[in-house]
Amino acid sequence: MDLLKKKILEEGSVEEGDILKVDSFLNHQLDIAFLNEIGKEFKRLFSDKKITKILTLETSGIAIASITAQYFNVPVVFAKKIATKNLDKETYESDVYSYTKRRTYKIKVSKKYIKPDDHILIIDDFLANAQAALGLIDIINQGSATLEGIGIVIEKGFQDGGKLLRERGINLKSLVIIDSLEDGKITFR
Amino acid sequence: MDLLKKKILEEGSVEEGDILKVDSFLNHQLDIAFLNEIGKEFKRLFSDKKITKILTLETSGIAIASITAQYFNVPVVFAKKIATKNLDKETYESDVYSYTKRRTYKIKVSKKYIKPDDHILIIDDFLANAQAALGLIDIINQGSATLEGIGIVIEKGFQDGGKLLRERGINLKSLVIIDSLEDGKITFR
Repeated sequence: MDLLKKKILEEGSVEEGDILKVDSFLNHQLDIAFLNEIGKEFKRLFSDKKITKILTLETSGIAIASITAQYFNVPVVFAKKIATKNLDKETYESDVYSYTKRRTYKIKVSKKYIKPDDHILIIDDFLANAQAALGLIDIINQGSATLEGIGIVIEKGFQDGGKLLRERGINLKSLVIIDSLEDGKITFR
Repeated sequence: MDLLKKKILEEGSVEEGDILKVDSFLNHQLDIAFLNEIGKEFKRLFSDKKITKILTLETSGIAIASITAQYFNVPVVFAKKIATKNLDKETYESDVYSYTKRRTYKIKVSKKYIKPDDHILIIDDFLANAQAALGLIDIINQGSATLEGIGIVIEKGFQDGGKLLRERGINLKSLVIIDSLEDGKITFR
């Protein structure tokens, strides 16, 4: 997606530890007009799939998933990262290891919102080691729902998450794949 | 907003501790078509204001703010609740006390995204004690931006946040105000 590459080159910055910071439009400030372009692109990429629900993970997936959901006319469910007071006791849970934060956290989705007749599209901002994606897939499986695909805004191609998911035969579409962030230089595939 | 009252009566449930659970459309599953109706209503209520940015707080404000922003053609900025690796060092910060969680947490917004020429609309899902709203106002003031108003989906009228903000002359609009959740019964104002 050329528009996204342009946006990343213009507004993104590379931080220590292979972090690509896109706070101006994706992770802190949200460029809603631009997110609509992302939503349209996801719709184009998954137009052959019958989607009933979009699943994402709090926090940074919520805005992208919500804007994208408008093009599919479906609700969004976001997995919660910690046990909160207001969450149903009846939840599907999975453990996710964060390489960035070097700790394992639990993600939870109420059983009410993942049903066997659901055809689910996972949407998230970044794909690196695919730990979050695997946790969400685990939850979809626990709910006996169908995973129709995974839409990622920015895939870090130099980490093994994309390879791992594609080898499993998962219908993964990343809007851009970054091959390297070495020396602060962003190299797209 | 009658549509919202109907939705709350049909899908909401009252939990211990005066908690109104609206997980089916607002706080876990997101009914995006319905959030668009909420967005249109906020636009109608603040149509006389020149808004340049919508400010909200992670997590539960993000979807509402993002959908609403489409009707104002402005970006969203969401305040972050914890110090994360990827956040700018240059941030405005404020302390927020959560009555629900009985602890104080820090909220942060990068200085890049709150500017003196910004006219800001705060959007959030719930208003109870207004601690989060006061934290966001504090951040707007630190950035010398202008607060144009606060749009709340559900105000708990039996807690003092609404009164406190209105007494300060703040342009607060709540789509519904709940006067009581006693005995599990939802009473609207």
